[in-house]
Order: sequence, then structure tokens, then C-alpha cells
Amino acid sequence: MTTPLKIAIAGLGTVGMGTIEILRANSQTLKRRAQRPFEVVAVSARDRGRDRGADISNFCWYDDPVKMATEVDCDVVLELIGGGGGIAKSVCENAIAKGRHIVTANKALLALHGTELARASESAGVAFCYEAAVAGGIPVIKTLRESLSGNSVSRIQGILNGTCNFILSSMRSSGSAFGEVLAEAQKLGYAESDPSLDIDGVDAAHKLAILSSIAFGTELDFEGVHVEGIRSISAEDIAFADELGFRIKLLGIAEKTPEGIRQRVHPAMVPISAPISAIEGVLNGVSIEGDFVGPVMLEGAGAGGGPTASAVVADLVDIACGRILPLLGVSSSYLTRPSINPMEDHKGAYFIRMMVYDRPGVLADISATLRDHDISIEGVIQRTRSATEAVPVVVTVHETLERSMNAAMKKIAGIEAIQSPIQAIRIERS
Amino acid sequence: MTTPLKIAIAGLGTVGMGTIEILRANSQTLKRRAQRPFEVVAVSARDRGRDRGADISNFCWYDDPVKMATEVDCDVVLELIGGGGGIAKSVCENAIAKGRHIVTANKALLALHGTELARASESAGVAFCYEAAVAGGIPVIKTLRESLSGNSVSRIQGILNGTCNFILSSMRSSGSAFGEVLAEAQKLGYAESDPSLDIDGVDAAHKLAILSSIAFGTELDFEGVHVEGIRSISAEDIAFADELGFRIKLLGIAEKTPEGIRQRVHPAMVPISAPISAIEGVLNGVSIEGDFVGPVMLEGAGAGGGPTASAVVADLVDIACGRILPLLGVSSSYLTRPSINPMEDHKGAYFIRMMVYDRPGVLADISATLRDHDISIEGVIQRTRSATEAVPVVVTVHETLERSMNAAMKKIAGIEAIQSPIQAIRIERS
Repeated sequence: MTTPLKIAIAGLGTVGMGTIEILRANSQTLKRRAQRPFEVVAVSARDRGRDRGADISNFCWYDDPVKMATEVDCDVVLELIGGGGGIAKSVCENAIAKGRHIVTANKALLALHGTELARASESAGVAFCYEAAVAGGIPVIKTLRESLSGNSVSRIQGILNGTCNFILSSMRSSGSAFGEVLAEAQKLGYAESDPSLDIDGVDAAHKLAILSSIAFGTELDFEGVHVEGIRSISAEDIAFADELGFRIKLLGIAEKTPEGIRQRVHPAMVPISAPISAIEGVLNGVSIEGDFVGPVMLEGAGAGGGPTASAVVADLVDIACGRILPLLGVSSSYLTRPSINPMEDHKGAYFIRMMVYDRPGVLADISATLRDHDISIEGVIQRTRSATEAVPVVVTVHETLERSMNAAMKKIAGIEAIQSPIQAIRIERS
Repeated sequence: MTTPLKIAIAGLGTVGMGTIEILRANSQTLKRRAQRPFEVVAVSARDRGRDRGADISNFCWYDDPVKMATEVDCDVVLELIGGGGGIAKSVCENAIAKGRHIVTANKALLALHGTELARASESAGVAFCYEAAVAGGIPVIKTLRESLSGNSVSRIQGILNGTCNFILSSMRSSGSAFGEVLAEAQKLGYAESDPSLDIDGVDAAHKLAILSSIAFGTELDFEGVHVEGIRSISAEDIAFADELGFRIKLLGIAEKTPEGIRQRVHPAMVPISAPISAIEGVLNGVSIEGDFVGPVMLEGAGAGGGPTASAVVADLVDIACGRILPLLGVSSSYLTRPSINPMEDHKGAYFIRMMVYDRPGVLADISATLRDHDISIEGVIQRTRSATEAVPVVVTVHETLERSMNAAMKKIAGIEAIQSPIQAIRIERS
């Protein structure tokens, strides 16, 4: 095969420009690996005149990416616009209808419309590739869809958002408060000016919903993900975690339980000795547990132009060689509706931090409330005392039902000497 | 496609039986992922009567695996016999000649005959798959051949032998000597009765030669791998490593240098804070450095029936779906002879442990010899003193040429107050 693979690129941000750069820099080896050359036949972006650090004047330009996806004679459309619907969705739908393959880095689009896109790409007989959508340069989609195809997966646990991991790592190393570190991350370009998609856990939840669907053979169910972000994590929580032998990480966890599938994104205490604790800064890491392979862990850069474009190009090589899979690994006719096991049924250990005024009997009230909810205390830390100010009291509790925890927390919040809100962070030992 | 993929299995050890078990246990999901069913049409092993913990009486049996590979009507032959030539090679060659795909876990065969097998399978138009040959259940072959295809790889570093990693981890946790821990590993089934392939680094070197070829697009060159094993590592080395903030690991490293490719397997001191230090016991881990993706690290079970069979089945699913690549990722016509950069040209830091009789001037002689070879001392440890017995003296030196180190070591070995042999372990910080 020597006919080039013709590519139209919608979106020329860091990933789009990174892709163009890889196709240029490694063109010789790519031609060998793909068994044919690549050719960018058209590009589209919002602003033609913007300085992108590289010359794009020799590419055929479209102001309208949907028009490009429909009109240009190409084999593949790269959708690198982003967003969970709108133009990105139109680009994909129109390209698929025209029999063009899709490569995208768009997790929101997949999380919200993945099942629909799986059906559409399947009936059109085109590839829909998205290695870049989850964990950037780390090959987690290929590992799940292909390398672990012999396994029944029981659990996926990952650090899926580099912004949050950077903030939590920096809070620990600097001892600074959340707000300060967020401002620093924004200055360094690790956080957006509106950081909410990242720090509220939504981005990680998009990615988790995708991994969960592939692993369990279910339709995408973003609504079924329990999501908590990291805004409430204080410098004190980080310090206590350290003292107790934990790191605080924003984890995405998808797991099969006897009662259904649980998908959750929330800050968690993980043991310092666990390999996932060593994943610091903007790095991502994903651990997948298969019934025959055991746990497999992947780590690397979860974002950035180079790593994300590396994943985009790997998808292009797969398409060039005809290595094409159904979007979620199996024909969409086999996908089932996931039966979601609600978070209230979660069983786990917890770290609880309360700000408490030093009044007689407060600790007795707390202990009694926990006992009344069948929750057993593992340890208590109170480091400081003050006659006038609230001081932190930390209680760790053994495995219990989240439902009981919620009820107990509500009761404890009513104790007069305790300031609200109470901080509760799940402990994940596995 | 609903015609089954017909499989003949040569070799019914833990991997062969593990493969049969996966095909049985996960047959429903496998059929969906492979878009067709699997059918084991024949098996062959040395001893038909051996208790394998599962019934194999319903499979068509062959005493002669070569005859099976030639005669049986099948699509794929699994070569799970092992060994760098002999029957395993005959099975593959005969199956390829008959137009059958190969799946194997045989690293020795690939390291010694990979280029030849690449050419043969290519001209026959069959797949030659070997995900199971390197790092067991960890998808390092697919990651290198497919996921990182957009990158130029500059370096691969891995813990590629679980037996050695188990021994080194156990020596550290128990403080025991090499011989004792080896005997324990043999009792636990983590080391063979003849452990030399593992502990002398040969198995890791087989695997490294394969990774190196894929990464750099070169012919297999097992002879070009510098190999040292772990027999000489003492409990004292392990204790000193700990004191200096290092772990001792048997590493396989393949790297591109301006003067050619260097492939080396040897014990190395790695910083405790490096993620590779956390890979303990029988686990394997591989880190790959690409020009766009940066470092990507994979960890998991590098051996054992389940994990290795998981990799075998992934290859079967790829073949069933027609996802077929050239053996080394590119057509063998593109493979070049690697220009091997000899170990003497290696530049690095070293840990040197000497057993020294306490005579005046010994340390001065050592320092002077190092200085005369342009080697600069980083630190010295001498913990004990004795008037009658040799005591350990440890010197760590800054980056230097291995050629200078070898010359200096030879000189130092001639100092009368120093017992031979001298231990020198390379320090790997990256």
C-alpha cells in the first residue's frame, strides 16, 4: 500500500499542532510503521491568523470544520476541538456519515455520547479512535481493548487528571493552601482560567466513564459516576495524611460489585507504600485488575501537546494499517445498560477531620454517635489545644457502609462544639 | 465472521494450560471481542499421562509437535515448548511454511533467530506474535510496536526477570545471603532447579534484545548484549545500597547513543525514590522513553501461568480480528544491522565495595589510583575496623568512563591489603 492516508485536522491547539509536528519529525519511521505515508490535506481552526509557532500556510484551510469534514477528500478526520457536544459532535457525525474514520482526544464527547457514536461508526464501517482522550500518552485504551482482551476486568483505579494531581502534590511539598497552589498551577499553564472541569472532578469522571464502559462491556453512563472534586482539601488534611502514612490523590475507580457497577471519582487517602502514591505532579497512572493477568499499572504523561499527539498518531498508524476495532471493543449490539451500584452502598474506611471547640464531652459525643451507627474507630489524633479557637480532631474509622457514615456525619455536624463542614475522605488500601 | 479460529497448542506447561483455562473461562466475552469463537483442535506435549489439573482427553493428541504443526488443519500454532532452537524452532518453521500463524512465549528463540523468523513469517504472510515472551502479562510488545509508533525511542529500562527481582527483594527484606534466598526461591517455584538462565542475566538479555530491535528498527543482536548476573551481590552490598539511598535491581537497558546502540543487563543501584525501585518481588516493570510521549512505565506480573496466558490470548484475539503486524513492527527489509556501542564506552557513576585489611596508607593508595585514572570520588564509607580481618570499604565515584574504571579496578586489585574480588556496581539515576 503506498497511497497516503489523507488526514483533515479540526482544531489546531497544542494537540493539533503537536500531531502535525510528529508527522513531520518522524515521517520516515512512520511511513515504515504505517506501511504508507501520511498527508494532511486540510485544517480548520477558529483563528487562521493566530501564531501557532509553526507555518500552516501550505495546508488547505477551512473556517468551518463541519464543512471540511463533509467536503474534503480525506480518509480520517481528527476532531481536536473539544467539548461534549456542539461543533465537535457535528464534525464527528458528518465525517462518519461520509464514511471517514475519526480520531479524537475528546473525553467529554465520548462520555456523553459514546454509545451513540459507537453505533454510528459501526454502521458506517469506520474507525472511531480515542487513545488520546484518556490519560494522554499512556496507552490505556489499547491496553484495555486489546492487551487485556483475555481477561474479565474487576477494577480500574487511576489518577486521571494531571491538574488535580499537580495541585495535591504541590500542596504537600509546599504546605500551601489549595487556593494558592491553584493560582500557581494557573500561572504555569497546568490549570485553566476556569479550572472547574478539572478540580471538581468532571474531567476525571468523563475519562472514568469511558474506561468503565470498555472494561465492563456496558453503555456509557456518565450520569452514573459519583463525582467529588478537590476544592475542600485543606493543607491540614494533607499534613494529617502524611502523619498517618497516606497521600491524598483524586482517584477514579470503576469496579464490579455483586450488586452492579460502581463508578466514582473523589479524593482518597492511599498508603504511601502503594505504587500509585509515587505518581506525582502532572503525571497520570492507571491500574487495571484482570482475572488472569492480575494488576497491570501504566504511568506517564496524561496531558500536554507531545504526549497527547503521540496517542493521536498511534491511532492514525492503526487506521493506516487497517487495525480497526468497534469503539468500545465489542459490537455495540452486545453493550448492556450498566446496573449502577449507588455510592451509599460503598463499604470502606474513612478519615474524618473535624474542627472542634475544646468543651468537656465532645469526644465522648463523637464516639457515641459513631458507635450508634455501628462504626468502629481505628484511631484519633488531636495535636493542638486552644481555649478559644476550634482545633482539628482527626478520627479514622474501620470499614463501614457509606450510608451509615453519612447518617453519623449528619448527627455529628449537629454537635454544638463542632464547626461545620466536617471533612470526610475515603481511605483506599487496594 | 463466525468461523472459529482453530488453534493447535504445542506445550502444555503452566502457560499452555493457562491458555486453555482462559479460553474456557472467558469464552463468551472472548467470542465478542474476537468477533468469532476459538477452538482448540489439537495439543501436543512430552507426556500425555501427566496430571495437569484439568482434563485434556477431549483434545486431539500428538506426540510429535512438528507433525501436529504440519498436519493438523488449524489457523494458529501456539509454540509453548521453549528453548532457543531445536523442536520449538522446527514447530515454528514448519507451521509458517504451511501458512499458519504463530503465537509464542519463547524469548530465547526470538533473541537468537528473530530476524530470520521475521523474514519467514513475512514472506508467508502470517502473524508471528510474542506478547508473552517479554514481561509476561505486561503489554510491552504492543505498547512498543503500536502505542508508541509515533515516537522515536531513545531508551528502554526494565526489570525483566522476576526471579532475580524476587531474590534481590528478599535479600533486602531478610538480610540473608544470596545462596539462602536462591534456595528459598527454588522451594517456592520462583527459580528453576538450574537457575543459571535467570540469575546470570541471560533470560533478561533475551528479552532486552527483543525490545531493543523493535525500538530501534534493528536486527536482533543477542550477542551484542553486555550481560552480568546477580550471583556476586552480597548481603553487604544490599545493606550499603540501603544506607546510600539505593535499591539494587537487575536492569536491562537498551539505549541510543551518538556512537550506536548499547544493550546491557547488569545489577544496578537505583535511587529509592525512583518509581522502578518500588517494583518488588516477582513483578516486572519497563520504562520506555519516547521523543514525544516522554517516559511511559508499565508494571505487572512478568511470569506465571495466568499472566503469561493472558498475553497469549490477547495475541489470539488480534489474529482472530486480522490485526497483524510485521514481527518487529516494520517490514524486515527495513531492518538495519545495529552498530553496537561497547560497554567500555559507557559513562556512569559506580559503587565500589572492597574488602580491605587495615594497613596504613591503603585508602591513600585507592584514592591515588582513582585520581590517576581521572575518577573523582563522591563518598567513602567504612563502618567497621579490625586488626585481623578484612573489613568492607565502600567508595562511590562520580560519572566516569567504564574503560577507566576497569583499568583502575585492575590496579586496585593489585594492592596487597585488598582481598579480591572487588565488587563494582553501576549507579543508574535516570
